[in-house]
Amino acid sequence: MARTDGLRVGVVGATGMVGRELLTMLERRRFPAGKLFVYSSGKSAKTAPFRGKSLRAPAINERQLAQCDLVFFVSSDEVSERLAPRLASRGVWVVDDSTAFRLNPKIPLIIPEVNGSLLTPRSRLIAGPNCTMTGLAVAGIALHRAVGIRAVRLASYQSVSGAGKAALQELFSQSRALTRRLPSNIETRAPVLKAPAHGVLPGPIAFNVIPQVGSIGLEGHSSEETKVAAELRKVWGTPRLPVSVTAVRVPTIRGHALSAWLTLGRPLAPAAARKIMRSTKGLVVCGGDYPTPLKAAGQEPVFAGRIRPGALPNELCLWIVSDNLLKGAALNSIQIAELLLRKGYLRPAS
Amino acid sequence: MARTDGLRVGVVGATGMVGRELLTMLERRRFPAGKLFVYSSGKSAKTAPFRGKSLRAPAINERQLAQCDLVFFVSSDEVSERLAPRLASRGVWVVDDSTAFRLNPKIPLIIPEVNGSLLTPRSRLIAGPNCTMTGLAVAGIALHRAVGIRAVRLASYQSVSGAGKAALQELFSQSRALTRRLPSNIETRAPVLKAPAHGVLPGPIAFNVIPQVGSIGLEGHSSEETKVAAELRKVWGTPRLPVSVTAVRVPTIRGHALSAWLTLGRPLAPAAARKIMRSTKGLVVCGGDYPTPLKAAGQEPVFAGRIRPGALPNELCLWIVSDNLLKGAALNSIQIAELLLRKGYLRPAS
Repeated sequence: MARTDGLRVGVVGATGMVGRELLTMLERRRFPAGKLFVYSSGKSAKTAPFRGKSLRAPAINERQLAQCDLVFFVSSDEVSERLAPRLASRGVWVVDDSTAFRLNPKIPLIIPEVNGSLLTPRSRLIAGPNCTMTGLAVAGIALHRAVGIRAVRLASYQSVSGAGKAALQELFSQSRALTRRLPSNIETRAPVLKAPAHGVLPGPIAFNVIPQVGSIGLEGHSSEETKVAAELRKVWGTPRLPVSVTAVRVPTIRGHALSAWLTLGRPLAPAAARKIMRSTKGLVVCGGDYPTPLKAAGQEPVFAGRIRPGALPNELCLWIVSDNLLKGAALNSIQIAELLLRKGYLRPAS
Repeated sequence: MARTDGLRVGVVGATGMVGRELLTMLERRRFPAGKLFVYSSGKSAKTAPFRGKSLRAPAINERQLAQCDLVFFVSSDEVSERLAPRLASRGVWVVDDSTAFRLNPKIPLIIPEVNGSLLTPRSRLIAGPNCTMTGLAVAGIALHRAVGIRAVRLASYQSVSGAGKAALQELFSQSRALTRRLPSNIETRAPVLKAPAHGVLPGPIAFNVIPQVGSIGLEGHSSEETKVAAELRKVWGTPRLPVSVTAVRVPTIRGHALSAWLTLGRPLAPAAARKIMRSTKGLVVCGGDYPTPLKAAGQEPVFAGRIRPGALPNELCLWIVSDNLLKGAALNSIQIAELLLRKGYLRPAS
């Protein structure tokens, strides 16, 4: 007999930066969570706000999680690697936002607007994508379907929340310290700031940009750059697509921006491109205006603007911004679960 | 008979942001200025520091300027357009940092390391380049000479000092206002900031990035993007080179950064590229490390790092930073004058 109390939903990592957004989104989108079990991924219990209450978020309890219908992982790779496959094999639907399974060929990597059709009743463990590539994956998919995308070049402007709470704390304290040292008027020279101390990010971030996200590997690419390229190829189903990325951290709080060059299968006027792109759900195509991180912060859609000719006749330039904590993470995870519900795959356990 | 009191040097716009740097550089590089006449480009007299003194910077005096051997213009296009050709036609050497003459086919646009050989004893009016393209012009020239560059794609991370004093003031006041509103700890959500008021730049810049530098034209490119492309073609002497630029303002104070993709005439390993690039004077090629705006601020060289394979076999990616007020403006102007001295073209009037 079907349970009548709605879905039993677990959230692992509920007190982290993406976890908080996930709870907010579950609430705002009226996700049918009959019972919610939230866990801190650390060892100590914390609390997390939900529907006006403060939920206790204890350390992870695998036995409780195994009784859930659906579990969101918004925690570390290590936690996901350890628990997600075990839960999935016991029939729990698992939506994992870590990098642990994204490139595993047996596990679907899903952005609903892009490749939601790949979900099957058997794909119990589903990965959500890297927050940086999501914007382009959504903004470019209709162009790819219409005329084919032959190569991608991307420079990112990534917000500090993408690196977690401690990094954001570092941005805030550096900003406070440097702001105090700024001259009140600049009749003299533009100040040369002394670099503030840093520990979380690979360099000082306030009033600076850092061309390194993650660690830098043998060929000279950062781990973020490699991830973005590999995940974009997987999500678009284009395993040989040349994708070149420069991933850069900038002193913004929320919202990853991308400057993209798309080599198309044939020349396409910007107006035609905009028209094609407008068919994508979840994408706002700006005409005269353009998005910025401050404008996109807290917003659900991906925004694209500055669509214009590139260097060569079959190339388009565009500028894309999306909130890395929402569409880049929490919102996409929930949209995967909503799609599972719509398809009738995910149902309260009977 | 040659004068014995050294060069008579004029500086128009001495109290502006680049003007201050120019005076500092004249001093630091022991430029042989026997007599220095400085002018504020505004209507009121101001002062400017030089060699430990405070020089009076009155409104422009054309008669005095005409008696100089050399005049630096670091002021507005309008001032340069009005005065620079008249002074040059009277035999004064004029180094102009405005955009007024850069694309004039009769006037050399000079970066000494790149195309200093174009100077002749007759080129009395010489233009200095846009501060954004200078970094790439220097970083890429040796590669261009060695293997040919067939296409360029550039995303910029431009500091606010490039937009002048009022813009920098705006960054400072917005940063102060927003920093005060930041939570002291972020146990709740990553804050969604309310956009602060703005008036100088086309949007709020603190904790934001703005994909617009200058005004946006009919084809969708900004004036900065168009300038960078056109000036790079002129300085490299490659009138048909495809150059595509996305110019973005970021909340840094000094130092323009560039993420560049260079399509080369043939494949080239990063190690070989670094070796070739190291032959360029004024360019520091970073190996394991990479430059950032904070590191490059106040420094004379152009810095390049993160040299690595691009999307296609004959493509290289690189990351370039240079101080936009120095190599991008004041320093380059002085280096032009130093080259004129070395060539023996510029001499104290006899």
